Amino acid sequence: MSKEKRKRFGSDWAELVYDGFMKIWRIVGFNWEIVEKKDAVGLFVYNRDRRQALFVKQYRPAVGHSIVEIIAGHIETRPKDMDPVFWVKCTMAREALEEAGANIDPGRIELMFNGGIYTSPGFTTEKLWLGYVEIGDEDIEDKERIFGLQEEGERIQRIWVDVDKLGDHLDDGALYDMKTIAQVEWFLREYYQPAATQYHSDRSGGR
Amino acid sequence: MSKEKRKRFGSDWAELVYDGFMKIWRIVGFNWEIVEKKDAVGLFVYNRDRRQALFVKQYRPAVGHSIVEIIAGHIETRPKDMDPVFWVKCTMAREALEEAGANIDPGRIELMFNGGIYTSPGFTTEKLWLGYVEIGDEDIEDKERIFGLQEEGERIQRIWVDVDKLGDHLDDGALYDMKTIAQVEWFLREYYQPAATQYHSDRSGGR
Repeated sequence: MSKEKRKRFGSDWAELVYDGFMKIWRIVGFNWEIVEKKDAVGLFVYNRDRRQALFVKQYRPAVGHSIVEIIAGHIETRPKDMDPVFWVKCTMAREALEEAGANIDPGRIELMFNGGIYTSPGFTTEKLWLGYVEIGDEDIEDKERIFGLQEEGERIQRIWVDVDKLGDHLDDGALYDMKTIAQVEWFLREYYQPAATQYHSDRSGGR
Repeated sequence: MSKEKRKRFGSDWAELVYDGFMKIWRIVGFNWEIVEKKDAVGLFVYNRDRRQALFVKQYRPAVGHSIVEIIAGHIETRPKDMDPVFWVKCTMAREALEEAGANIDPGRIELMFNGGIYTSPGFTTEKLWLGYVEIGDEDIEDKERIFGLQEEGERIQRIWVDVDKLGDHLDDGALYDMKTIAQVEWFLREYYQPAATQYHSDRSGGR
């Protein structure tokens, strides 16, 4: 953990007022606090053989119950000389294996939104990198079990959702994690083809 | 500010380890921290007369520069007996006036995703309510100026974006605030009609 007690955020100086797993910095001369924490990734996995998206369900203390989310995790320190975007994709692949038993080649992951995006820039430095990958049944452990790292106390359950139902799940409130919503919306815009209209090939070239 | 030093988050007890504008709670017996803060709103404003979406640009210390976002703000304490969802919509309308000079009838606001959604449930309690409203030129102050509350040091600039360019701006990384991305994606799925195809009325009834 750094011993820094004062640092710049853009044009402002800030003082360290809490130093734990996260840090809180208070802007000098202004009533504003910033939460500094590790950046993170989220990965949308589409299984073409099942026409299903792969989500995970786990208990989140901040929310007080289990919640359905995209596969996600923190970005650890990048090895020297490693390309930053490739490291992000390696993190996504690592999480896909840990949280859902999926074997993903990082090189096949497509990055959404052309780079990292801010979770809530009004109060936190947290940046998220969101990715997409298509898999088949051969890329994934077929048995359902509890996933996650035991040493970190994770107990993660896989949730498969038919892609034809995703739009309904956005509208009826079944999905209420913001990164998951952003990724599902992106998938519906970029890749989704409704089963019922997939024969009308003249409607697919609009964008 | 509450004097509570210990409280439950779902099945866990947590101890208060930082108490400022935000609070940090540490889960007892587990290496995990939760940031507790006020919930917030975001409002997507579509001006049918201009075929433009209304965004705001402001300096965000956590990011170190100015960033283009949806109109947004914190939810203050709800008046007794006020309907919670109506209070959320009143907050959106208040922010639209403060941040962008728009006069919005709260009753005309449509809520996205059927309720509040979690910004980043891995570490914070923050819940966001996202809304949509359509306006015309008559509903908005036409002069460009600096908006925001002077007493809170806000300096907010309006940004108008052609709705036909929104998809490109998602893909090229011009938009990198997550709530803004989620709202733009929702708009493109729910309401957007490309100018070039708006005469093909047979294509509009698909959902």
